[in-house]
Amino acid sequence: MSDGNDYNRRKFIKNAALGAALASGASKLSADETPASVIPDSWKKPGSPFSNYGQPRTDRSSPIRWISNNQVVPGDGVSWSPLHELEGTITPNGLHFERHHNGVPDIDASQWELKIAGLTQRALGFSLDVLRRFPMRSKVAFIECGGNSNAIYRRNPVQAACGYIHGLVSCAEWTGVSLGRLLEEAGVQRSGKWVIVDSLDAAGVTISLPIEKAMDDVIVALYQNGEPLRSEHGYPARLLVPGWEGIVNIKWLGSITVSDRPVMSKFDTVSYTDLHANGIAERFSFEMKVKSVITSPSPGQTLKGTGFQEISGLAWTGNGMISRVEVSTDGGASWREAALQEPVLNKALTRFRLPWSWENTNAVLQSRAYDQSGNVQPTRAMLLKQKGSNAYYHNNAITSWAVAETGAVSHVYV
Amino acid sequence: MSDGNDYNRRKFIKNAALGAALASGASKLSADETPASVIPDSWKKPGSPFSNYGQPRTDRSSPIRWISNNQVVPGDGVSWSPLHELEGTITPNGLHFERHHNGVPDIDASQWELKIAGLTQRALGFSLDVLRRFPMRSKVAFIECGGNSNAIYRRNPVQAACGYIHGLVSCAEWTGVSLGRLLEEAGVQRSGKWVIVDSLDAAGVTISLPIEKAMDDVIVALYQNGEPLRSEHGYPARLLVPGWEGIVNIKWLGSITVSDRPVMSKFDTVSYTDLHANGIAERFSFEMKVKSVITSPSPGQTLKGTGFQEISGLAWTGNGMISRVEVSTDGGASWREAALQEPVLNKALTRFRLPWSWENTNAVLQSRAYDQSGNVQPTRAMLLKQKGSNAYYHNNAITSWAVAETGAVSHVYV
Repeated sequence: MSDGNDYNRRKFIKNAALGAALASGASKLSADETPASVIPDSWKKPGSPFSNYGQPRTDRSSPIRWISNNQVVPGDGVSWSPLHELEGTITPNGLHFERHHNGVPDIDASQWELKIAGLTQRALGFSLDVLRRFPMRSKVAFIECGGNSNAIYRRNPVQAACGYIHGLVSCAEWTGVSLGRLLEEAGVQRSGKWVIVDSLDAAGVTISLPIEKAMDDVIVALYQNGEPLRSEHGYPARLLVPGWEGIVNIKWLGSITVSDRPVMSKFDTVSYTDLHANGIAERFSFEMKVKSVITSPSPGQTLKGTGFQEISGLAWTGNGMISRVEVSTDGGASWREAALQEPVLNKALTRFRLPWSWENTNAVLQSRAYDQSGNVQPTRAMLLKQKGSNAYYHNNAITSWAVAETGAVSHVYV
Repeated sequence: MSDGNDYNRRKFIKNAALGAALASGASKLSADETPASVIPDSWKKPGSPFSNYGQPRTDRSSPIRWISNNQVVPGDGVSWSPLHELEGTITPNGLHFERHHNGVPDIDASQWELKIAGLTQRALGFSLDVLRRFPMRSKVAFIECGGNSNAIYRRNPVQAACGYIHGLVSCAEWTGVSLGRLLEEAGVQRSGKWVIVDSLDAAGVTISLPIEKAMDDVIVALYQNGEPLRSEHGYPARLLVPGWEGIVNIKWLGSITVSDRPVMSKFDTVSYTDLHANGIAERFSFEMKVKSVITSPSPGQTLKGTGFQEISGLAWTGNGMISRVEVSTDGGASWREAALQEPVLNKALTRFRLPWSWENTNAVLQSRAYDQSGNVQPTRAMLLKQKGSNAYYHNNAITSWAVAETGAVSHVYV
């Protein structure tokens, strides 16, 4: 399988040629600035020593997560991935978004086991050592909170950086054991139609998953981007439920109970469920819909000079792979197809890029993603019409960033 | 493009079925141990608060890098990726191997520019802001030190964990600007056949690269696994030279000088160059050869009980993609084909897995990788015959791990 970089590179070069207005902004060096004439200070003394575990720089070059914390309930809130400061598709573990309901528990793995019981042939407990003896699988996958982008429901456009509006989505390489394989070990009874999954966190998060998904591609993840899970990402084990809303990707796995029905927990019913205008609530709206967002340029940034400007962003879908991303610079009047960075992976973030030439004019930037199954990202107006005014979750509407003549970027509705 | 997980999953399930001796080791739960009857302690109090930048746990569940430091030269040495404790293919930034020659410099990006001069139409300086305006590209790629695995040249097998023998290789998603694009901006003269690349570190690392490679797939990398480069990985900018030995992936980029010849620096000639038995030294042995290593089971580990055991490891090649990995459990007498975790990417680490059933018997585990170009990983005897007794670098020989009747794993030569 080719990762398509050759194709993509040709496409980029062709695109760059199209952006003929590119004035790179590189400075011309005089003779006394050329390499041979300059001794950098950093050649004059040894640098810092090695470390056992590396850290980002401590200056402003290192992005951090912004925390939105519930002031009443300890550890209830989110930390946002700073999408506007990141590149590529992998989110480093320290910047992967987090949504906790009552803080991060510290689980003693030596005393821990994952329990599988209920409508099974036998009730089993799997220690971490036992889980590690099962065949492993890896999957690069996004996880998105069902409440991501809910600012887009508000009457007026929230003025915040892209990551603080849309940053409850991140992407990592997860490795662990097939949940289906563990359920086979316990022996699911014919009457078992759902699994009830309990978290060990103080909020007692519990959710229900249909047995078909549980037997399909769900992973009991033990590793994130190569290293064992950190506490805040669910140590010692969490679920990865590819393409499905964040809440069902249960962290700090406690037990999995096979049942003939869902448990209708708070998280199955009140939370992450949208009330439509007709008074009917969506139930079990698991699959995250096709979506994209432009991360650069984005609010808080200011374009530096006219000419070539790369428009870049992220697209994803819970339904297979991204097939196409289109970008508009005129608020949706016209669209151009963006290049997709290879490899495009199933249920993972996909980076898109489009060359653009900016000439101190007003512009409204939008991206519109399509997936393999033919789904298209809706406009905000279409989504509101469909969802009504009571909806709070699962907002996958097209986002609009306005570029002013000054180059300043802001969030607008069009 | 499919990431092939469905195919792979079927293959794993089939493999698991083949390993029919699997005794999972899961414990049967009694009635008072089932989920409904147990209130975990972690439900009784809120967990820890959010953080701006997440960290690994501070207990032994978190792998660290082992440091081999030159006692005479400050900051000369390596830190090893703990391959035996990692899974998947992505190395988290804090555990990516490092090789520094005189410590980690702290570069002030506001005063920094990448200089491109020499046999060019113009001498240019690119600030970080200017570089960020160019089209970006991402590439998942391994970087391997030319000195990785040199313990395998020693007369007796070194007894150390896999990562401390072979861990000078890591893999990340790198994002930045095409070096070819920057060279085009400067305008390479017809006589320009090489680029001389200077690092800003105190060792003054300088290397030479043929212009063909520089114009091909080399990236001036600004981001690693999504976030801006850390100091120890080359902030503000480093070269990613896909598939070529670590030393040419210059960190803390200072200047790139186009020349009609290589500069024949210490790092072009004395280091990373092998002296053959006939007295002739290899020159510019850039491309890392096809290689693999079993990370589990590996030395320092002890098999826990008989029955199913997954053999898992990493394979890579500087020449395209891994096409096949074979595993032997009898010291090379017979071989079975391992499953390759999709997606298999060009010049990236590839995870392989094979089910095995162990019955308290002696075994010698080996892996043998093949690449697209038809290259095969040699035995140690073949490599020594080819390289002679003066060689120190570029050891890609098959490694052998012995499993004793007790389950203890050690490093052997066969």
